Amino acid sequence: MTRAFELAALGPARGVNPRVGCVILAADGRVIAEGHHRGAGTPHAETDALSQLPPGGAAGATVVVTLEPCNHTGRTGPCSEALIAAGVSTVVYSVDDPGVASSGGAERLRAAGIEVIAGVKSEEGEILLDDWLVTARLGRPLITVKWASSLDGRVAAADGSSRWITGPEARADVHRRRAGVDAIAVGTGTVVADDPALTARLGDDLAPIQPIPVVFGRSEIPADARVRSHPAGFLTSPGTSLPGEFHALHSRGIRSLLVEGGPRFASAVIATGLVDEFHVYLAPLLLGGPRSALTDLGIESIADGMRLAVRETVTLGPDLLLIATPKGRH
Amino acid sequence: MTRAFELAALGPARGVNPRVGCVILAADGRVIAEGHHRGAGTPHAETDALSQLPPGGAAGATVVVTLEPCNHTGRTGPCSEALIAAGVSTVVYSVDDPGVASSGGAERLRAAGIEVIAGVKSEEGEILLDDWLVTARLGRPLITVKWASSLDGRVAAADGSSRWITGPEARADVHRRRAGVDAIAVGTGTVVADDPALTARLGDDLAPIQPIPVVFGRSEIPADARVRSHPAGFLTSPGTSLPGEFHALHSRGIRSLLVEGGPRFASAVIATGLVDEFHVYLAPLLLGGPRSALTDLGIESIADGMRLAVRETVTLGPDLLLIATPKGRH
Repeated sequence: MTRAFELAALGPARGVNPRVGCVILAADGRVIAEGHHRGAGTPHAETDALSQLPPGGAAGATVVVTLEPCNHTGRTGPCSEALIAAGVSTVVYSVDDPGVASSGGAERLRAAGIEVIAGVKSEEGEILLDDWLVTARLGRPLITVKWASSLDGRVAAADGSSRWITGPEARADVHRRRAGVDAIAVGTGTVVADDPALTARLGDDLAPIQPIPVVFGRSEIPADARVRSHPAGFLTSPGTSLPGEFHALHSRGIRSLLVEGGPRFASAVIATGLVDEFHVYLAPLLLGGPRSALTDLGIESIADGMRLAVRETVTLGPDLLLIATPKGRH
Repeated sequence: MTRAFELAALGPARGVNPRVGCVILAADGRVIAEGHHRGAGTPHAETDALSQLPPGGAAGATVVVTLEPCNHTGRTGPCSEALIAAGVSTVVYSVDDPGVASSGGAERLRAAGIEVIAGVKSEEGEILLDDWLVTARLGRPLITVKWASSLDGRVAAADGSSRWITGPEARADVHRRRAGVDAIAVGTGTVVADDPALTARLGDDLAPIQPIPVVFGRSEIPADARVRSHPAGFLTSPGTSLPGEFHALHSRGIRSLLVEGGPRFASAVIATGLVDEFHVYLAPLLLGGPRSALTDLGIESIADGMRLAVRETVTLGPDLLLIATPKGRH
């Protein structure tokens, strides 16, 4: 299994599919084939390993794989059937497949008379699968909502000016965090009002992997909006049924989503109750006036307030970053 | 002078008047009298010391005093004239009198032919005088504005409920800080809406010295308002010309004022530009809605934002206290 983990780690950390590794052992314990998954549309790890053997070469073999073999037909056929057809005698795997459509592989294999040993080194296996597993269980990306406000909770002055509330250290931190997510979400209002580039920059350079911008809302994105020339392209989403839209983004391989505003869109996302983490950049500045970081969350009474826990307080030059999670989660 | 400091420290740390000590030495260096000031309406330190000598007993003596002898007639006569009348030959003092009306003593003494040595151990002298000196120079109390808000800057939910935004540790911290100030300021709106007791409690007990509540505004304070039974009584102030009203409070001996809200009154105080310190208690909670900690500060554009510097971040149970001061001050 340790070798299977090594093979799995060769796969891509991002994208729709998980990193999976597979080792095939002959009856005498010799390794006769290895494989791993290289990303969506390419063979699963088991098929990759089987493909290295001549027909009949896996008969009576033991297959060690980091994730439960899938039981559904996607862009590739179900691995469970491929293993049955190859005549293997034993399947050892680490982590149960959390997918609704894809799970059931172990059951199918057992029904075909194959010995199945599940949960081997499953803690290590889960770490390797990381947020693929978390988001597969949730059926949506991990969602972080970020805002940068004055100490009194404003994201802009009365006239709408907001450059810059935070200092260069805090802004650099935002770019580092953008570079670490699959997608950035904004409302159309923000695109129209602020025309953000939504790129991840490290110093003066674009980060090598760019998050894809997702613009939520029904308003038209202006023809000359900077997001239209984003190096990763951009997606749009109606913003009318957020949980379903988050699910759709997950299906496209987006495991992590950084919601950057504006206030109305961020508030709508928070109101779904689906936010996993809050990044609040606080600048030592007072502004007053009407432009609060959040608008309405549908909360009437203090007892209904959304309780969080501050996990980390980071000093960034003159500013503070508070990282908080919903209370009782994580 | 060191003995004079010891004597000064016997005086009260609060009130209109400073802590002052005085030692009188005969020409041969023997200490022939000591005195200190015991609070408003009682003799100044010099007069206290002189009163221990028979008529003519201070002739040719050296008077060592921690603060420049006053030169005006308040509830007691000017010390400068008393020293001249006593025929002393030398006056040694530590700190210049910062008062507009009371200063000039040294000049008066010199004009009468007395040798005056000023500024002896003045750093130690200033520390002993502490905020009496700072506020005497400012002509107003030291002003701290405090609020407790959610992470998104709200002090109450939409329905007005606000108990409790912060946890017991943060609330206990507020009471400790209340016990350390001379007065607490609130707007009449808060008295009407929340009916706060405005006492300083330490655990279940009232603190031995209570800050006096000052209610700002023109609205009537309800007959059954809890502030009416405050152990220290209460003051009212119209709230229409804040700088002058702060000066008047200072003249009454209030050296430190903790402004506790509500949002409109706190914002009006902040807009004067006279706030020395901000205490922002942040609870890990999101509320949204209309009830922001601050309302309007008269700030139009981001460039006019009131820039602060965070001096301290204190963890209080689940909450944070940020202590900030105006940028470039202190």
